[in-house]
Amino acid sequence: MIDLNNLNIKNMQVRELEILANNLREVIIDTVSKNGGHLSSNLGVVELSIGMHYVFDAQKDPFIFDVSHQSYPHKLLSGKIDNFHTLRQFKGLSGYTKPDEGDYFVAGHSSTSISLAVGACKAIRLKKEDRLPVVLIGDGALSAGMVYEALNELGDREYPCVIILNDNEMSISRPIGAISKYLSQAMATQFYQKFKKRIENLLEYFPQGASYMAKRFEESLRLITPGLLFEELGLEYIGPIDGHNLNEVINALNQAKAMNKPCVVHAQTIKGKGYALAEGKNAKWHGVGAFDRSSGESLKANVSKKSATEIFSNTLLNLAQKYENIVGVTAAMPSGTGIDKLMEKYPERFWDVAIAEQHAVTSMAAMAKEGFKPFIVIYSTFMQRAYDQVIHDCAIMNLNVVIAMDRAGIVGEDGETHQGVFDVSFLSAIPNITLAAPRDEAMMEKIMEYAYFHQGVFAFRYPRGNFLLDDDFNPCEIKLAKAQVLSKVQSDKVFLGFGQGVAKAKLVLNKLGSDYASLIDLIFVKPLDEELLKELAKDTKMWFVFSDSVKIGGVGSLIANFLQKENLYHIKLVSFEFEDQFIAHGKMSEVEQFLKLDVDSLCEKIKIY
Amino acid sequence: MIDLNNLNIKNMQVRELEILANNLREVIIDTVSKNGGHLSSNLGVVELSIGMHYVFDAQKDPFIFDVSHQSYPHKLLSGKIDNFHTLRQFKGLSGYTKPDEGDYFVAGHSSTSISLAVGACKAIRLKKEDRLPVVLIGDGALSAGMVYEALNELGDREYPCVIILNDNEMSISRPIGAISKYLSQAMATQFYQKFKKRIENLLEYFPQGASYMAKRFEESLRLITPGLLFEELGLEYIGPIDGHNLNEVINALNQAKAMNKPCVVHAQTIKGKGYALAEGKNAKWHGVGAFDRSSGESLKANVSKKSATEIFSNTLLNLAQKYENIVGVTAAMPSGTGIDKLMEKYPERFWDVAIAEQHAVTSMAAMAKEGFKPFIVIYSTFMQRAYDQVIHDCAIMNLNVVIAMDRAGIVGEDGETHQGVFDVSFLSAIPNITLAAPRDEAMMEKIMEYAYFHQGVFAFRYPRGNFLLDDDFNPCEIKLAKAQVLSKVQSDKVFLGFGQGVAKAKLVLNKLGSDYASLIDLIFVKPLDEELLKELAKDTKMWFVFSDSVKIGGVGSLIANFLQKENLYHIKLVSFEFEDQFIAHGKMSEVEQFLKLDVDSLCEKIKIY
Repeated sequence: MIDLNNLNIKNMQVRELEILANNLREVIIDTVSKNGGHLSSNLGVVELSIGMHYVFDAQKDPFIFDVSHQSYPHKLLSGKIDNFHTLRQFKGLSGYTKPDEGDYFVAGHSSTSISLAVGACKAIRLKKEDRLPVVLIGDGALSAGMVYEALNELGDREYPCVIILNDNEMSISRPIGAISKYLSQAMATQFYQKFKKRIENLLEYFPQGASYMAKRFEESLRLITPGLLFEELGLEYIGPIDGHNLNEVINALNQAKAMNKPCVVHAQTIKGKGYALAEGKNAKWHGVGAFDRSSGESLKANVSKKSATEIFSNTLLNLAQKYENIVGVTAAMPSGTGIDKLMEKYPERFWDVAIAEQHAVTSMAAMAKEGFKPFIVIYSTFMQRAYDQVIHDCAIMNLNVVIAMDRAGIVGEDGETHQGVFDVSFLSAIPNITLAAPRDEAMMEKIMEYAYFHQGVFAFRYPRGNFLLDDDFNPCEIKLAKAQVLSKVQSDKVFLGFGQGVAKAKLVLNKLGSDYASLIDLIFVKPLDEELLKELAKDTKMWFVFSDSVKIGGVGSLIANFLQKENLYHIKLVSFEFEDQFIAHGKMSEVEQFLKLDVDSLCEKIKIY
Repeated sequence: MIDLNNLNIKNMQVRELEILANNLREVIIDTVSKNGGHLSSNLGVVELSIGMHYVFDAQKDPFIFDVSHQSYPHKLLSGKIDNFHTLRQFKGLSGYTKPDEGDYFVAGHSSTSISLAVGACKAIRLKKEDRLPVVLIGDGALSAGMVYEALNELGDREYPCVIILNDNEMSISRPIGAISKYLSQAMATQFYQKFKKRIENLLEYFPQGASYMAKRFEESLRLITPGLLFEELGLEYIGPIDGHNLNEVINALNQAKAMNKPCVVHAQTIKGKGYALAEGKNAKWHGVGAFDRSSGESLKANVSKKSATEIFSNTLLNLAQKYENIVGVTAAMPSGTGIDKLMEKYPERFWDVAIAEQHAVTSMAAMAKEGFKPFIVIYSTFMQRAYDQVIHDCAIMNLNVVIAMDRAGIVGEDGETHQGVFDVSFLSAIPNITLAAPRDEAMMEKIMEYAYFHQGVFAFRYPRGNFLLDDDFNPCEIKLAKAQVLSKVQSDKVFLGFGQGVAKAKLVLNKLGSDYASLIDLIFVKPLDEELLKELAKDTKMWFVFSDSVKIGGVGSLIANFLQKENLYHIKLVSFEFEDQFIAHGKMSEVEQFLKLDVDSLCEKIKIY
């Protein structure tokens, strides 16, 4: 085993680097099998990462990892071996790049890397420094528009930088879109065929030697084809190379380094390389929980309870069966959102459009205009990418679209880039939007059925993993702006819960005694159940709000606006939403404890009122 | 003059269509010279619009106009001649497409059209209808990433549709980026040269006939080059054609219509065609106010007062002179934002990255990481496009970037797609963001100087046109979270103004009497001046908030949160921000009157408290 604490990679021979690669894989498989994390994306880039550290200067050159779910080998090559066992744990190493840990930039959302490289290039030029930005980006990230915005400027200004395109012919799931097709050999061949035909037509003028000529062209074109797209944008292109062959990798990177121009190094790799069970096109090994190394079996206690995602998926399947005009879209998260089941059963009505949230929303807006009922299924944090499209293409048009936001609230180990906590604030400000959240399985089904019939933009949010409630309360029929009174007691205190917040309120009540406060499930925060709230205001004076959203512009804020509008100044309002800070990674329970939003802390806080 | 009320375009001869084109130009020039509006973009697409109505079925086929600032000929061809004189006026015809007026979709932000076409295609396929989406998109719109997200899916699925690429080699200002270069002949030639060199190397194997062969290749390649980019994405390509030659236009559109595949028709046009003063590369004629037809002179009363944009531009110029690490970016609005002056004086430090807000923000985030101080200058409404980038690439990193939002508040004639009213809500929810607004010229200068020194993300907003205040008050030094008391009177009422809202509060006080209420300029809404607000709360009980932002999550909402946090329930709070609805086009004053937010209406409202 090579000593990863005292690595002098620049002085190593290729044979030693190959051993190093094996060592890195061993550590990654071992750690991820215990802590969970991104497995196959990291195993696929071991040699590319070694190449980066070998050819470039990790101390000086900005290393930019797109999404950075492939930065584990880089972490290990950067002297983090001793801390690596804390990966993704509370106060431990982040599963992504992080400046606090010595990395160049944070990344958790896809396709920002080339923009960052362009900015770094501009800075380097102005500072007249001798540094070279190096980007590692997967083929999946090429579907997002941001990449083209950046390539458009980069190709124009021709700043020197190296873009390593890690092409494993799959992003998180299977490849989608023309770019993906294009990169794959099949498409390259198809394009080549077209081109060849033109040349053949031309060659008819040269009866002699035409076939030999055609053969030469074939060879020549085959070599240059995959790079054309980049070359047309003004970038140099090297490849495709075998991304697991260290000699090839080092040669190509050295060549790119010497170019003094923007250059794409197209490396073909195998996702999961080195862990047989995970190799190849197996989406399930992209991000995993703890597992048994030899069998590959998940070590998670067998939870019989359905996740919110599963409930969503099953319910949508039922609805799609019943209502033929339901269609739907995901942006590269078919299994993460449970849309995969729908895509399988109704391939003509459900689509994965790849990492392209803007396009996902606007294309579905057009379908709504045409009389269909689209379910746009995107994680809460990624909806931030389509904010303008929700306003400009859905809300101004007042279209009948459903925005289903999975992973709302605290997401756990993925941490600050992935927290789904801003959605209530940024969506509630938009006219024509209705915003709701289910507290449990039964309500999720009812809200989704309601969503189908709702006129206008209907957004709802639900947590990562399980609902904390287990249908503890009877579900109610959903009516626009109607909350549900879950318990009414003789008390001047009211607990107002939204989504997963209802469970939190219930757990607090379990501790404080069920007659401590009345319990309301708001169901809708926009519009609010003003009638009920006015009624409640008559004989209560202390309201507590429970929701896993940020406080600024959040649920408490919406209720505050209502109280002021109605002149209900006798009501004291306290919201237990998230304070104004980014929320770090770790187990949900640990993070909540740290934020003092666990049940015990909440009880303490409530008692002082 | 052809009767535009009883147009039977399908039965007309090309010669008649040419007369029609002249007539349309006449009406457009006449109306825009009176009402203001988009001139050169519309004059450039007269023949293309006629071609669309001639070849396709306007009643049936979805006509999708990107940004839709080129939809006037279409409006006239759709029977709106009688209303056309109301263009852009309050309750009159919109300057953009609008479903209320019979158009397919709303558009005011760039680059949504191909996504809409993809959605329409999916719907048409499911409904088994015989309709063909037709998109009209300018070359400038190709810089935005959304277009590639859409092309990526379109090229993959090969839905039949026609995309007319209106290539006038300039979007709003000069062309930027690799795509633009690529489309232009120069680039096509450059690419061709590269390719030719490879072929020449190859031809060395064939000494005989090589030169004739090379010539044939030259011809062949020249023809196919501009289309390669689209063909590689899986789209058919026709062109380039002369977009002012009706025969060519009609032939190309007929050909595209017959293809049963996605097809790009590349039409070269001249912006401003038919009005000599506006023809060609003259950014000033893109959007204009009323003007004299013969001289081209603006009819706007000569306002000596500087616009907020001018103040911004001058101040930034001074700052950039003083502080060498200031850099800046605009997304296709160099003259609109006043960054053009900076780009001219410091071409190495200020950039236009084309319509690419996401890339603009993230590339500047990297510059901040490198120690520069970027000013990101984007209209408030277009910042919606970069929401995720502000959170993910600026705020999580807590970088020293300045976000300058021009056109905040009501923008007037551009209407609902352009109102800059959501920024306070969507930005204030983000941790690490500071949010301020100047009330007048002197404060703008001070806030910008402060912004330079501020640590963290600093955003500020300022109105379209002029500040209403004329330095009526002495400016104060800017300190983080420090408001300014403009007048303190013996009254239990306080007026809290933010940005242009300070002027509104002042105007109301002018009517109600200066001793009616104390007047505060908040300057910052995040963080608030909690010290001052607590002090004010001691001897007042009625607070009124003035700001041109939406009420939900807006300034009043932030103050409400503060009052609750501090237990200041004796303060009654009323905010005069915008209610929860989209705001239509028209003169600012008319729109404000309609919303009952003009000075007289505000006085009436205040009196009832």
